[in-house]
Amino acid sequence: MNDEYARVDEGTLRGYTAAILRGAGMSADGAGVAATVLTTSDARGIESHGVARLPQYVKLIDAGVLDPAAAPTIERESAVTALVDGRNGMGQVAGDTAMRLAIVKARDHDVGVVAVRNSNHFGIAGYYAMLALEHDLIGLALTNSSPLVAPTGGRRAMVGTNPIAVAVPTDDGRPFVLDMATSTVPVGRLEVYARKGLPLRPGWAIDPAGDETLDATAGRAGALLPLGGTVDTGGYKGYGLGVLVDLLTGVLAGGLYGPLISGLWDATAPSDLGHFFLALNPVAFGPRDRFHERARDLLRRLKEGERAPGVDEILVAGEKELRAVEDARRHGVRLYHTVARALDDLGRRFGLEGLPARAEGDVQK
Amino acid sequence: MNDEYARVDEGTLRGYTAAILRGAGMSADGAGVAATVLTTSDARGIESHGVARLPQYVKLIDAGVLDPAAAPTIERESAVTALVDGRNGMGQVAGDTAMRLAIVKARDHDVGVVAVRNSNHFGIAGYYAMLALEHDLIGLALTNSSPLVAPTGGRRAMVGTNPIAVAVPTDDGRPFVLDMATSTVPVGRLEVYARKGLPLRPGWAIDPAGDETLDATAGRAGALLPLGGTVDTGGYKGYGLGVLVDLLTGVLAGGLYGPLISGLWDATAPSDLGHFFLALNPVAFGPRDRFHERARDLLRRLKEGERAPGVDEILVAGEKELRAVEDARRHGVRLYHTVARALDDLGRRFGLEGLPARAEGDVQK
Repeated sequence: MNDEYARVDEGTLRGYTAAILRGAGMSADGAGVAATVLTTSDARGIESHGVARLPQYVKLIDAGVLDPAAAPTIERESAVTALVDGRNGMGQVAGDTAMRLAIVKARDHDVGVVAVRNSNHFGIAGYYAMLALEHDLIGLALTNSSPLVAPTGGRRAMVGTNPIAVAVPTDDGRPFVLDMATSTVPVGRLEVYARKGLPLRPGWAIDPAGDETLDATAGRAGALLPLGGTVDTGGYKGYGLGVLVDLLTGVLAGGLYGPLISGLWDATAPSDLGHFFLALNPVAFGPRDRFHERARDLLRRLKEGERAPGVDEILVAGEKELRAVEDARRHGVRLYHTVARALDDLGRRFGLEGLPARAEGDVQK
Repeated sequence: MNDEYARVDEGTLRGYTAAILRGAGMSADGAGVAATVLTTSDARGIESHGVARLPQYVKLIDAGVLDPAAAPTIERESAVTALVDGRNGMGQVAGDTAMRLAIVKARDHDVGVVAVRNSNHFGIAGYYAMLALEHDLIGLALTNSSPLVAPTGGRRAMVGTNPIAVAVPTDDGRPFVLDMATSTVPVGRLEVYARKGLPLRPGWAIDPAGDETLDATAGRAGALLPLGGTVDTGGYKGYGLGVLVDLLTGVLAGGLYGPLISGLWDATAPSDLGHFFLALNPVAFGPRDRFHERARDLLRRLKEGERAPGVDEILVAGEKELRAVEDARRHGVRLYHTVARALDDLGRRFGLEGLPARAEGDVQK
């Protein structure tokens, strides 16, 4: 029996999360959106951006630096663009509103680009990119975030892990979904390795002096390296991508950027994060079916390519997460036991009965 | 005296290159565009995509698989999108035409997205992204290319080095210009290392069996690794970016993609490459000056950050290339001696007098 992980029915988890967020001051609609984004992250196997963060969102609300009741407003708008003010509310609400606006524009005019300022953490970028899929559109979502990554040649964290997410429809339920931080690894990876006493891999982190380190504790005290690692292995490309995300989010939308952004989950000042969303209609460039067919053909060819020794399967972006979703639908969303317990505690604070979770060992896989 | 490199005045090099391309069958306008793109690459210090490739373009023309006289046509168009058929002409002509079309759309409607099919190698992606800068627009350029990169877990080259280029205006002559292949290193790097007998770095290449290799000859026979290297260092992110580029170019535009694309400079079949261009008007999201100011502020903060030991300067994307341009303006474009000689030979074939180059050692730096 495996008690490290608990399993919770996806709908139950979403409802429980939404109830906590309503308790913390969100509207029913807003809480529903935020709960869906967080639960989707866990269902996709991305534990770092899911309900595990709920206590931290609530802490920001408790501290009065995030307004749970805020409703985003459209500040500027043209046929194919808009600027949204997140009004310092939950990033999921601003993100969902903005991406849906981009989608409407792309349905009407082939392209929609919406930038957001004055927002907060919005969870997984992939969620917003994937909203485009329901409308047979290509979706892109970017966000800036608290400084954790050192510029190539630098010794201090000055850029966020600034993710890039893109979703491309294939019409067979297996879309291409790239959702990647522009650092080599997420900061949580260093925490796990420090806890377990494992050595890091090259290209992950530098110590406070600015030298590459394989010591997880030193790396945690230092900074993450951008995708590619050091100069020799193309780290300036990941650094460039991270800065690009900052330029298209905080700089473009008029929010904070780079080293001006406060520390991760800092509860002393509003985040003023920026997001960027784009939706694009492939039908503007040719017949829909031909696009889907070619996309599927490319992904199939990659999957069926010759494998390296010891490799069972070549994956395409989004495939691993899709399997996690299928598993979550069948057996419940997988939550680390400490996460389930913290959620349970939080729920009780807001007058909920305990979270109905079962130990993973009880699940027939 | 250093005779490894020659120096050629930029205008002279452009004119000489254009004359060769006219001799090979291009129109005066087309040759001017292609020569400008190639010469700009060398001036920016990107030798791998400059006039060194001229003999290979001419080889494709000689073989009848690239039509030098082709004029691109617009196949589909809406207010903010277009599909361009490159008519199997030089990629520079199709690329320049398409990006300028995206720019007009962005000036009129804030966004322009133009996809291109039936094209050929277009040189540096950064050239097209940078065309947006003259109009105070953000520019993006993507292209697919011959398979050189193995998918994560694969052992065969199935994806091109598919570059991503983005240019962001700053109004001070020092724009942000990211122009990066989605592989860790370009294939030319392996060739240079093989010639010099140097060991590769981790994350660069795999051998034909699919194992990571530090042997340049084995790597050349195998495949490049995507940005990030192997799985442990985030290679699946570079692989994802490379596939994304294929989806937005060949797949979206209706050309070839991934492993269907013929080998590099293969003169037996048309390339049918795809490109993707986007121009975005920052003024749609707020005042122009504020955008420039924030962009400059972010880049300045990065540059002025604390440096790692032994590092003289933190660079931002495009800065190194800008210095190369300034050097080229002052001392002439730097050409490797074999490249200058090959260009001279090619010119003579088309009835030109020799290329007026001088040895680098004669240049007062």
